[in-house]
Amino acid sequence: MKSKFLKHINNPTDLRQLEEAQLPEVAQELRNFIIAVVAVKEGHLGASLGVVELTIALHYVFDTPNDLLIWDVGHQAYGHKILTGRRANFHTNRQLNGISGFPKRSESVYDAFGVGHSSTSISAALGMAIASNLKGDFEKQHIAVIGDASIASGMAFEGLNHAGVTDANLLVILNDNAIGIDPSVGALKNYLTAVKEGKNHKQNNMIKSLNFDYSGPIDGNDIFAVIKELKRLQKIKGPKFLHLITTKGKGLQQAEDNQVQYHAPGKFDANTGEILPKSEANLPPKYQDVFGLTILDLAKANEKIIGITPAMPSGSSLKFMMDAFPKRAFDVGIAEQHAVTLAAGMATQGMVVFCNIYSTFLQRAYDQVIHDVALQDLPVIFCLDRAGLVGEDGATHHGVFDLAYLRCIPNMMVYAPLNEIALRNILYTAQLGLNHPIAIRYPRGRGQIVDWQKPYQKIEIGQANCLKKGSQIAVLSNGTIGNNVTLALAKMNNPESIAHYDFAFVKPVDEPLLHTIFSEFESIITLEDGVIKGGFGSAIVEFAASHNYKSKIEILGIPDEFIEQGTVSELQYYCKIDVFSLEIIFANALFS
Amino acid sequence: MKSKFLKHINNPTDLRQLEEAQLPEVAQELRNFIIAVVAVKEGHLGASLGVVELTIALHYVFDTPNDLLIWDVGHQAYGHKILTGRRANFHTNRQLNGISGFPKRSESVYDAFGVGHSSTSISAALGMAIASNLKGDFEKQHIAVIGDASIASGMAFEGLNHAGVTDANLLVILNDNAIGIDPSVGALKNYLTAVKEGKNHKQNNMIKSLNFDYSGPIDGNDIFAVIKELKRLQKIKGPKFLHLITTKGKGLQQAEDNQVQYHAPGKFDANTGEILPKSEANLPPKYQDVFGLTILDLAKANEKIIGITPAMPSGSSLKFMMDAFPKRAFDVGIAEQHAVTLAAGMATQGMVVFCNIYSTFLQRAYDQVIHDVALQDLPVIFCLDRAGLVGEDGATHHGVFDLAYLRCIPNMMVYAPLNEIALRNILYTAQLGLNHPIAIRYPRGRGQIVDWQKPYQKIEIGQANCLKKGSQIAVLSNGTIGNNVTLALAKMNNPESIAHYDFAFVKPVDEPLLHTIFSEFESIITLEDGVIKGGFGSAIVEFAASHNYKSKIEILGIPDEFIEQGTVSELQYYCKIDVFSLEIIFANALFS
Repeated sequence: MKSKFLKHINNPTDLRQLEEAQLPEVAQELRNFIIAVVAVKEGHLGASLGVVELTIALHYVFDTPNDLLIWDVGHQAYGHKILTGRRANFHTNRQLNGISGFPKRSESVYDAFGVGHSSTSISAALGMAIASNLKGDFEKQHIAVIGDASIASGMAFEGLNHAGVTDANLLVILNDNAIGIDPSVGALKNYLTAVKEGKNHKQNNMIKSLNFDYSGPIDGNDIFAVIKELKRLQKIKGPKFLHLITTKGKGLQQAEDNQVQYHAPGKFDANTGEILPKSEANLPPKYQDVFGLTILDLAKANEKIIGITPAMPSGSSLKFMMDAFPKRAFDVGIAEQHAVTLAAGMATQGMVVFCNIYSTFLQRAYDQVIHDVALQDLPVIFCLDRAGLVGEDGATHHGVFDLAYLRCIPNMMVYAPLNEIALRNILYTAQLGLNHPIAIRYPRGRGQIVDWQKPYQKIEIGQANCLKKGSQIAVLSNGTIGNNVTLALAKMNNPESIAHYDFAFVKPVDEPLLHTIFSEFESIITLEDGVIKGGFGSAIVEFAASHNYKSKIEILGIPDEFIEQGTVSELQYYCKIDVFSLEIIFANALFS
Repeated sequence: MKSKFLKHINNPTDLRQLEEAQLPEVAQELRNFIIAVVAVKEGHLGASLGVVELTIALHYVFDTPNDLLIWDVGHQAYGHKILTGRRANFHTNRQLNGISGFPKRSESVYDAFGVGHSSTSISAALGMAIASNLKGDFEKQHIAVIGDASIASGMAFEGLNHAGVTDANLLVILNDNAIGIDPSVGALKNYLTAVKEGKNHKQNNMIKSLNFDYSGPIDGNDIFAVIKELKRLQKIKGPKFLHLITTKGKGLQQAEDNQVQYHAPGKFDANTGEILPKSEANLPPKYQDVFGLTILDLAKANEKIIGITPAMPSGSSLKFMMDAFPKRAFDVGIAEQHAVTLAAGMATQGMVVFCNIYSTFLQRAYDQVIHDVALQDLPVIFCLDRAGLVGEDGATHHGVFDLAYLRCIPNMMVYAPLNEIALRNILYTAQLGLNHPIAIRYPRGRGQIVDWQKPYQKIEIGQANCLKKGSQIAVLSNGTIGNNVTLALAKMNNPESIAHYDFAFVKPVDEPLLHTIFSEFESIITLEDGVIKGGFGSAIVEFAASHNYKSKIEILGIPDEFIEQGTVSELQYYCKIDVFSLEIIFANALFS
């Protein structure tokens, strides 16, 4: 790839040597570089393309890393990474031991704050700005770049509400492209659109009402306009707000035209932009589609079914139901707290509500799960996609805490299906009416059963199943990670020694079966795709203690550390819950 | 107490028989009734006095319980309870087996949604309104009454943002009295004040920007004005917003003049309003004051110390530091999510941040604790007041999940002091610099050591202490509940059989000492003021399993159910963690 300027830019200081007139060419090169690498290595594309000009302008105008720059969520920070010393490593993006797909403090001094989840940037930047004031540094700039989907989340409002009554040197830049991963929703989005179109509002009164020095909207893909405005704002003290209009996917026509698909398009032709065809015939389904197609099917028969997603209609596959039943399926935006309590409100009126939230994002609504759903024992059906190790998105996105933080909640049932059919059947069972809330957690990616759309079967609540009998050791697994046990046993010479039980229900746990198992086996191994501390295995040792069983128990799962990015296989290997590790662990257990 | 109307009002239907002109007298009687009962029985006063007229107007105009009425937080719902069938039981308010201090679905069909935590009402009411639409009921009204402190919380914004793009029959009533428990803060509060004063804004553009039909502000203590406006709004479809101005404590001069103190004044003279003097000489301190006075003291010596509270300056006693160091101590309003990430931002800049949040409210910021603090291993010091059973506030407010939901987080240290001196010393130790986040949880109410302000001593991280040696059974307690063990042992005939260890650190747990204990004792009892599932005891059985120890382990703590209101002693007895129960449990253990 031809590069005149970019190859010489190893950090923002190099960038600042250039003439302003040369920057459009830098932008073109940066855009080409992102496209070229992401086309081959995959990753998030559209967001970074949209902020190429802003990225260059920020590092050109401000004194990074002394000035502190925070990218909300971080999908859009590839250009930032490339300009701040990570061009040569950018091809390792999202790989094991490579650079993270998100800004990360331990990776670069230019990454002022680690991100991944939405809407944290204003609070973090304000904290830094207040700290600078206290240290007597009144010149330092603190900049939060946040999208219009993210700024609609409650946490961002809390940050703005506080910032507006401070004299903090805070610049909030709204990167308004009318889309997050899916198109933005909500009243604020409509308002911002009206502002952009000059309807009703010449300026953004809402932001001014919160006591910000508001400027904009201006074209965020016009690098000269952005630089000019940033230079002006640089001299203004206190909380400032710049409203930029950008185009997600800017510079790659297909990405501009198909913004949802090109958010993270997978491999594509860097020259034509065409997404490379994948051979998907006869592949097992994605778990998200098992959810999406099943709820669609169930909703046809059960009028009380409602679906809710906070900003993940595509990722959760709730879009199938949204298309078919637009009045009964809701994208509420990045508003997990609202999503859960909205579901609770609907449930009080007898609706059967499926609230689909990625496991790691349900952490955002933990209080609402406890206080609004479980305490009132409302039968909301939580569907937690992306549970367990998610792979390349890394530490911010692994859904590994859910079993621990949910099983301590009274009234809450917690279920992890072994496979697609079990997921399908628990969704069917849940909508029949359980009288209690349930959390159903399942992983990212594909299952293993091509022919999964079997007739519905009701699942017995709290019942575990023996998948394989055995004589010496009982393996108790929860969820899809149990399939690794099956594969490991298939490779062993003496599989007859090992029994395997599918404990899909972490809660209520199958106590009668546990009594049998603890009576019969002196050695028990538990396995889960979640943190060991407080999780499924912990429930089993609690049971053993409460009945004074003396069997040896080994707990396998995610160790007490944050797990970085890599393929799911690589990360399972790291955590010793992959097939190969299990085979060794089982063999050792037999001979210990 | 003289009552002409109130004694005949057993439900809102009775109320609706009255002439409008008679309602001011009803208001006076209702106010007198609330004052008379709360003066003797204690509880929340000021909020309910402020909405007497609104309460009557709502039940007079709307067809409750068919129309659905939700009181945000619920401190203000005493009048509502009295008018809806609970007048005769109102004297049991907040008592064991009495009525709850908050609206509660299981208590009355008029309590459309259980509340306690802030800012849930809009989401819940919207969920109900959408459900009504789906059921074809386009007449039903869905009303959320929310204060100006609560509406500034992010969750409320999420609800408004969604509601504004629906055609739901939702009426949001802003009860604007410029105060929550403490005075409201933030840019929105300033904006609302400007609206009220007619400055800059004739009407509330911010709310109109979110596509609500806005009306107001009007005097919420003028019952005729409120009724007139409610009747008008009753006929308007879609999302509506009524801005009322009320006076917290209305009708009791002292309560109007001292709104913070009279939020929950304790016992007072119903005639004069004077708060009855308590004999507080030589009492041990409240734990909140141990925090408040210690951080004040430490802040004098350590300039890097910052204090943050989300809307609890009085309740956390951070107010001492706020008065002395107003630039370094922050009330950020009801914004737990923002509070935590603000703390994280400050910590990146080397500040020593104490973030004080009630245990049950930290549930609101669980994701921020994981994603913004622990993942980046920032040494934020979380101080969790009101941990464990809190007593009369009941199920919504018990801080019993924290040990379980925090100990599963990597990098996080979790500590519960045995007493005031230990709390004082861990605060001292934490500000010396731990290089990791720590959560320090301590209970509501008073400690037991009058002379607690001893010279600081550094606490050894992860070290447990033997409080008493013993021969047969080892009791491992966490936190102040350990004092119950000491008291129980003092009552026993054979205390020499029982050893007692203070495991203040749930994480890192003292593994060397655990090895010693498990080697020496065949019977171990753990005790915590938190949920058994996943908590401290769970950590101990995990340890035992991982080292294949065979000792019998009995876990004492909060069972897997929501615990209702009562005195702390009553609730401890219910959970079998009071002194009397422990004595019996220990005795039984010795003979089993």
